[in-house]
Amino acid sequence: MPLSPEQQAEIDHLRARARPTLRAVSEGMEKHLYRAHPVLDHGFVRAIDYMGDDSAIVQAARVSYGAGTKHVQNDEGLIRYLMRHWHSTPFEMCEIKLHVKLPVFVARQWIRHRTANVNEYSARYSILDREFYIPAPEQLAAQSSINNQGRGAVLEGDEAVRVLEMLKSDASRSYDSYEAMLSQEGQAGLARELARMNLPMNIYTQWYWKTDLHNLFHFLRLRADSHAQYEIRVYAEAIAGMVADWVPLAYAAFEDYRMGGVNLSAKGIACIRRMLKGEEVTQETSGMSKGEWREFMGVIG
Amino acid sequence: MPLSPEQQAEIDHLRARARPTLRAVSEGMEKHLYRAHPVLDHGFVRAIDYMGDDSAIVQAARVSYGAGTKHVQNDEGLIRYLMRHWHSTPFEMCEIKLHVKLPVFVARQWIRHRTANVNEYSARYSILDREFYIPAPEQLAAQSSINNQGRGAVLEGDEAVRVLEMLKSDASRSYDSYEAMLSQEGQAGLARELARMNLPMNIYTQWYWKTDLHNLFHFLRLRADSHAQYEIRVYAEAIAGMVADWVPLAYAAFEDYRMGGVNLSAKGIACIRRMLKGEEVTQETSGMSKGEWREFMGVIG
Amino acid sequence: MPLSPEQQAEIDHLRARARPTLRAVSEGMEKHLYRAHPVLDHGFVRAIDYMGDDSAIVQAARVSYGAGTKHVQNDEGLIRYLMRHWHSTPFEMCEIKLHVKLPVFVARQWIRHRTANVNEYSARYSILDREFYIPAPEQLAAQSSINNQGRGAVLEGDEAVRVLEMLKSDASRSYDSYEAMLSQEGQAGLARELARMNLPMNIYTQWYWKTDLHNLFHFLRLRADSHAQYEIRVYAEAIAGMVADWVPLAYAAFEDYRMGGVNLSAKGIACIRRMLKGEEVTQETSGMSKGEWREFMGVIG
Amino acid sequence: MPLSPEQQAEIDHLRARARPTLRAVSEGMEKHLYRAHPVLDHGFVRAIDYMGDDSAIVQAARVSYGAGTKHVQNDEGLIRYLMRHWHSTPFEMCEIKLHVKLPVFVARQWIRHRTANVNEYSARYSILDREFYIPAPEQLAAQSSINNQGRGAVLEGDEAVRVLEMLKSDASRSYDSYEAMLSQEGQAGLARELARMNLPMNIYTQWYWKTDLHNLFHFLRLRADSHAQYEIRVYAEAIAGMVADWVPLAYAAFEDYRMGGVNLSAKGIACIRRMLKGEEVTQETSGMSKGEWREFMGVIG
Repeated sequence: MPLSPEQQAEIDHLRARARPTLRAVSEGMEKHLYRAHPVLDHGFVRAIDYMGDDSAIVQAARVSYGAGTKHVQNDEGLIRYLMRHWHSTPFEMCEIKLHVKLPVFVARQWIRHRTANVNEYSARYSILDREFYIPAPEQLAAQSSINNQGRGAVLEGDEAVRVLEMLKSDASRSYDSYEAMLSQEGQAGLARELARMNLPMNIYTQWYWKTDLHNLFHFLRLRADSHAQYEIRVYAEAIAGMVADWVPLAYAAFEDYRMGGVNLSAKGIACIRRMLKGEEVTQETSGMSKGEWREFMGVIG
Repeated sequence: MPLSPEQQAEIDHLRARARPTLRAVSEGMEKHLYRAHPVLDHGFVRAIDYMGDDSAIVQAARVSYGAGTKHVQNDEGLIRYLMRHWHSTPFEMCEIKLHVKLPVFVARQWIRHRTANVNEYSARYSILDREFYIPAPEQLAAQSSINNQGRGAVLEGDEAVRVLEMLKSDASRSYDSYEAMLSQEGQAGLARELARMNLPMNIYTQWYWKTDLHNLFHFLRLRADSHAQYEIRVYAEAIAGMVADWVPLAYAAFEDYRMGGVNLSAKGIACIRRMLKGEEVTQETSGMSKGEWREFMGVIG
Repeated sequence: MPLSPEQQAEIDHLRARARPTLRAVSEGMEKHLYRAHPVLDHGFVRAIDYMGDDSAIVQAARVSYGAGTKHVQNDEGLIRYLMRHWHSTPFEMCEIKLHVKLPVFVARQWIRHRTANVNEYSARYSILDREFYIPAPEQLAAQSSINNQGRGAVLEGDEAVRVLEMLKSDASRSYDSYEAMLSQEGQAGLARELARMNLPMNIYTQWYWKTDLHNLFHFLRLRADSHAQYEIRVYAEAIAGMVADWVPLAYAAFEDYRMGGVNLSAKGIACIRRMLKGEEVTQETSGMSKGEWREFMGVIG
Repeated sequence: MPLSPEQQAEIDHLRARARPTLRAVSEGMEKHLYRAHPVLDHGFVRAIDYMGDDSAIVQAARVSYGAGTKHVQNDEGLIRYLMRHWHSTPFEMCEIKLHVKLPVFVARQWIRHRTANVNEYSARYSILDREFYIPAPEQLAAQSSINNQGRGAVLEGDEAVRVLEMLKSDASRSYDSYEAMLSQEGQAGLARELARMNLPMNIYTQWYWKTDLHNLFHFLRLRADSHAQYEIRVYAEAIAGMVADWVPLAYAAFEDYRMGGVNLSAKGIACIRRMLKGEEVTQETSGMSKGEWREFMGVIG
């Protein structure tokens, strides 16, 4: 359970107090504010604040396009047009701030998205809690034999037992040492900024993470993708669920053009044209390598 | 007068409709929302949306620092500490979105601040209005004789009259040609994306501009500074006034440490130490160049 | 002719002096260094410096992937894989610095690409030259009747003559006033930072512009595209020619996957699958709007 | 010893082959290229590539300032002027690419500098080596009693022995488990992307890191500072040594204005003025808090 009773009480308190504002309000996001969506065994993601809604995207686009956009019949059509033609700046006019609790090895992937603002809990300053990510049995997968950065079948029997045992006992022992080194009972106590180096990367950290909708969509496209590691994908999926409520029109366009869309190379689109004219195209006549052809065939079904 | 009756009515309409939100609300900023603060002869700056308040800065800092900050007695002290020690990320947790109407030559300076989101009115797509910045007589200054990028005394008499006449007539004539080239009466009409190139850089454009508080402070430090060109400084000052109401604690710290603060070189601080010990220090014994010494003497008064 | 004899002599001088370096050297780019590629009537683009080559991309990718990439048979295959899967960070390991002379209205589009370093000639500090972009007759196009931000047929006869006359005479007159206002003969002389506002946006400016290869590809994809305004497209095309010589493998992958590639929506790829199975699909049964269907039909030829 | 004989042979090979280039060459940096500067017990930092030199900074500044800078007598004076007045864009015209081997907990601090390009060795794709940072005895410090994020006295006697023993044995045991989980002998073998989570944060990783000189100076100011954690400071110091050879004029200005310089608040500079006039100023009459006054007294010696 990721939240303490005190934390839950604080959330309830914050949710009990609505105040008037003249700003754009997204009813869909208001219902998520502060609430912790559980992710993995001890993690969560919470929306703490947001700016803008679907109308803010349209409003910003209409400043850049002025009166000329009147022929676009409705907001949905304009938002879909913007998404289709990579007019990304109007989406940057929406902003979201999340509070995320996540394992360190997930945080290390996440932080590679540079266009965001971050305040992380500092293990140099404070002491981390004894909380580690231990995969559920159905996530304990073998190394993929065909993809160097992927998973294969789920581990079974003794092997699964051994792995779980090692993950748990090493985490426990490392944390015991962490506490022992920090302790000031009968000794000086090691500096926090040094002691933390003994902790394994499945320990949980937390941060405030703020980004705009355009960059958030980029994050979701990469991290909610089936090729992303499961442990970050579940965070992306939890966020995606909130975004769908926050900006439903933009999210629907994102789903159609980005999440569900595909990029085809010049060679790929040339093949499709030939195929639609009835030509039989093979890897040899496609101009593609075997790897490209395999991916291409996956796309066109 | 920068706003049409229709625009003013729209603002009044937006300000009449408060809605409940669970987010952090800044009463100080609510009173500015949508309102146009006039700047220069036809420009304005309006706050359209914001995220966060002084407490959001503290909250983000306390995630990074955890429980350890309890000894900081109050929010003001923590905010001042963060500002003093260049802990900039908590300030990035606040965001503001402005609608600005400004001359193109000012926009060209402004856009150099890259960490911001922008949607500008497109003269490729739409037709610009006949509005030009013509300096007020007291701003019609001569080239500075000591600073290549500064102003000297105000122009007087015939020269001032001639300059104003040239600015007005050239703007008017260029806009006449712009309209004549665009016109589709009895001719095809030049493409907008070409016709706009005939317009002078004192024509007004407008944009939505969104940035976080840390980057906004950086903008204000450079552009509300006495060395900034007057025509952008007045925008910075108008924005500063709103920020002071939005996040009063952060703004006060910014004023003390940034706007009113100074950077001293190693040589400068060494001189101050010698002076405080009673030593007579001159430019020759300071290790500074004449220019540095002059600036240094200006700082220590 | 964009270069003065003195400037050409300086370029010849720089090109005459090769020096030894231990860095990666791109022979293809060395032949371009310092040379001015003419663009438009008075503009140019010159490569001033570069960092890295195709091998630098591979080298960076192999740090991230370590020994595991040995099965990728060659650099070309790896570079194509990186491009296809949007692994953009290895491309960021190459950097280029350009010196560009360009009309202000083009500079205003260009600067919207924020992830770059820029030093522009300052008209606040210095005096601009009397050089204006005047379109060649074949570029003097009418407003498109179907695309608000596009061009239609070329202007003909009297209209073309009138437009050219207006562009030339307004530029000339504005520059005359600029000089008259700046003049210190018999008067104080207006400050440069004010006088510049009288100049039209087809005046030439220049800057140093530096960016990494990933962001440069993004720039080229948008600005060398057929929908980009002609006056910026010609710069993008001149740069593309140099990039093809600098990093030939990366550029070839970029051409196949980005410039020549297409993005299809989930709806689009679903239609293609149905079509390839022999189904007759129409706009009505596609789930697309008329605009999307028209664009889709354009893609699949 | 951080380098294998094979790696050292590769470096020697790269250093043996100079090639001609027309680019700016920094003799001072050429002598560092590819060489590994040892840092901590198993880490290093190597310069892999660079762009520009002191002259490139001047050249870029003179584009922005044009002919007007002729009165600045020399490059050194201009560079000092730019640094003093926070004209940062000319410094962005230099770029450096480093190869760094560093413990994960240091990498986590380092990556917070967002304006940089990074390719990190992927433990999702490849297997990490058995190399851990174990502090030297003189770095094994107690928690500071006055600064939550600082170190106090060095640990002594049994406590030091116990800490070193815990760090070593936990690292060793965690790595044993990592290998045991990955092993495919007699079992499927856990996916790499999962097994890595068992490793402690003192394990070494490596990356290519590329940034411009302005952002590098910002990194050095924060990370070579006495308040930075020792384990990242030693990397910053090693880099600073290379930068001093690469761009000696810019580095000297950086040392005087940034590393050795101080920021004084409006209150601080007001106190100095009063003191220089002979007034006795105390914390009570300074307007500063006790913490600010203590820091202020530290600055003025």
